[in-house]
Amino acid sequence: MAPEKLLLTPGPLTTRIETRRAMLDDWGSRDAPFIALTAELRRRLLDVVRAGDDFVAVPLQGSGTFIVEAALSTLLDADAKLLVLANGAYGERMVKIARRLGRSVEALSWPENQAIDPAKVAAALSERTGVTHVAMVHCETTTGLLNPLEEVAGVVAAHGAALIVDAMSSFGALPIDLRSLPAAAVLASSNKGLEGAPGLGFGIVARGVLDGCAGVSPSLSLDLYDQWRALEENGQWRFTPPVQVVAALVEALRLLEAEGGPPARLRRYQASFDTLAGGMRRLGFELYLDPAVQAPIIATFRPRPGEPFDFDRFHGALSDRGFVIYPGKLTREETFRIGCIGAVEPADFERLLIEIRRIVI
Amino acid sequence: MAPEKLLLTPGPLTTRIETRRAMLDDWGSRDAPFIALTAELRRRLLDVVRAGDDFVAVPLQGSGTFIVEAALSTLLDADAKLLVLANGAYGERMVKIARRLGRSVEALSWPENQAIDPAKVAAALSERTGVTHVAMVHCETTTGLLNPLEEVAGVVAAHGAALIVDAMSSFGALPIDLRSLPAAAVLASSNKGLEGAPGLGFGIVARGVLDGCAGVSPSLSLDLYDQWRALEENGQWRFTPPVQVVAALVEALRLLEAEGGPPARLRRYQASFDTLAGGMRRLGFELYLDPAVQAPIIATFRPRPGEPFDFDRFHGALSDRGFVIYPGKLTREETFRIGCIGAVEPADFERLLIEIRRIVI
Repeated sequence: MAPEKLLLTPGPLTTRIETRRAMLDDWGSRDAPFIALTAELRRRLLDVVRAGDDFVAVPLQGSGTFIVEAALSTLLDADAKLLVLANGAYGERMVKIARRLGRSVEALSWPENQAIDPAKVAAALSERTGVTHVAMVHCETTTGLLNPLEEVAGVVAAHGAALIVDAMSSFGALPIDLRSLPAAAVLASSNKGLEGAPGLGFGIVARGVLDGCAGVSPSLSLDLYDQWRALEENGQWRFTPPVQVVAALVEALRLLEAEGGPPARLRRYQASFDTLAGGMRRLGFELYLDPAVQAPIIATFRPRPGEPFDFDRFHGALSDRGFVIYPGKLTREETFRIGCIGAVEPADFERLLIEIRRIVI
Repeated sequence: MAPEKLLLTPGPLTTRIETRRAMLDDWGSRDAPFIALTAELRRRLLDVVRAGDDFVAVPLQGSGTFIVEAALSTLLDADAKLLVLANGAYGERMVKIARRLGRSVEALSWPENQAIDPAKVAAALSERTGVTHVAMVHCETTTGLLNPLEEVAGVVAAHGAALIVDAMSSFGALPIDLRSLPAAAVLASSNKGLEGAPGLGFGIVARGVLDGCAGVSPSLSLDLYDQWRALEENGQWRFTPPVQVVAALVEALRLLEAEGGPPARLRRYQASFDTLAGGMRRLGFELYLDPAVQAPIIATFRPRPGEPFDFDRFHGALSDRGFVIYPGKLTREETFRIGCIGAVEPADFERLLIEIRRIVI
């Protein structure tokens, strides 16, 4: 086996070897040990966001986009009216999913470097009648931008709408507390802040909301209500689960607890981010985002001013040195992204900075 | 780690340790090594069914049901008229999926112990006008019944309809040869005859058929056309792939080739099945199916006549001895199922028979 490269990307990312070793077993998916594993998974997912008995955790096969589509297809009936707060590719994707499903949807948009403005959300909800659901991305993986979740949730709740939160890259690290946050659904996947293997998404959904969604989804596979009911009835998944990915995620959740939970994980990510951002600044690379809206999850950098920049060459040179980074995802500006999430720590970024210095100077 | 149990089920099943070890690496999903791995996956999947350049392999995240729904949602437009040939739970599931999608669908049904009758299919297609697509299950995992794929395909082609084959539990072992079989799509998953880890399905789809399906699917996640185009354009998956599951499946496909391809795998499954069926008969357990329609994939047994049978106790006793079996999936009759697929061989069934003998005698 070749020495492994560190994945400093938005995911899939570098996981701990204990997490990957958890994939070495076969599991009978309808057998007692796997039923117990699924129960542990669901309980631990609720614990991460301090969800009480009024919430349920519903895992679903597939990538993050699958769980977002499942939530929209299950929670929005034909009479629903969705307002998506968008300031990046993943907000736009929710608009696209709702349109495809034939649901009534409107986007309220901000530039990719600006956070959602709760006052504008309040104004929009006052101007419009009949908005039943509002959807937003907590941390936009497009840029690394952090949206003001609590403030927006308060505004949405005050207008009597249900909030659907794409927490893909924030879940497990950034604070989400469902004891106080008025959200209908928080959606995420196995392979970002939870540091599991990819192949699984999940929704933490308000029981009272989901309970009213029988027969709504036009999709059998992506019906989150049916998925929930099956899990409640006999503890089993409706359709074959990715058993090794489930085992890896449960191991990753145990490791999250051992690390000290989301606050400890956030401290590690913040320390990695600070090491990276400080070092890059000294090398002449500026962050794309203003520090006030930057989450320590993904760092988007501009090339150094007045100097030609060839991403493919930069990426290739770093890859040869053992680090995988990502191109930017912005439409208007050339950037590149370095992820601070996964089983990496500040010392890894110190090593990265040494290599970047060698490449660019 | 506790000693592993053998999974003698319809899946997820026992895989080879080499296949599980392939999950020990992390992969950047948009990086060159993973792009190469995906290309190898797609090429090897085509090879299994001898598909030429007129077919494409399109992998999709999720379980087998996800790829079936993706194929129906992508290939059937609003004007399509689907006839499902059903003789088990998985045929019925296709009817359910099409109904949910709002597509025009009709079922032509047989009892669960009878194969699809090509003459009746021909008559049905002659009586009806405008059937554009016919769907069938090759080997019904409900019972282990083998449907006459070539004969049905010939009838469907003669009537100018497109055939969609759910080959979930046959792909990799039972003969499917797309050089001669007139099928529009053959669908399967990673964790049955291919002996990979669960979490991935795929379609082998006629290029000319898929090419006309842009914008048809109401689902973004399950749009097989978009999935295909993205793979063709840059070799990457649209949405985060389950990288470890992909790596396991590629390893499993290499092992399939090393074993001698589908003919060798079928010989092993047949030898296991014969060992099992012969031994069970000597113990007084009869197969539910007539040998003429039995595939050596799943064996469905009736309890011994005139004797009380408690499946949970039988299952528990076998589980304690290291073997996991499944309950039956029949609506009308009590049965149990023992899978002959996966990384198991006749000697494993000899050991199983010794334990069953100890339990029942």
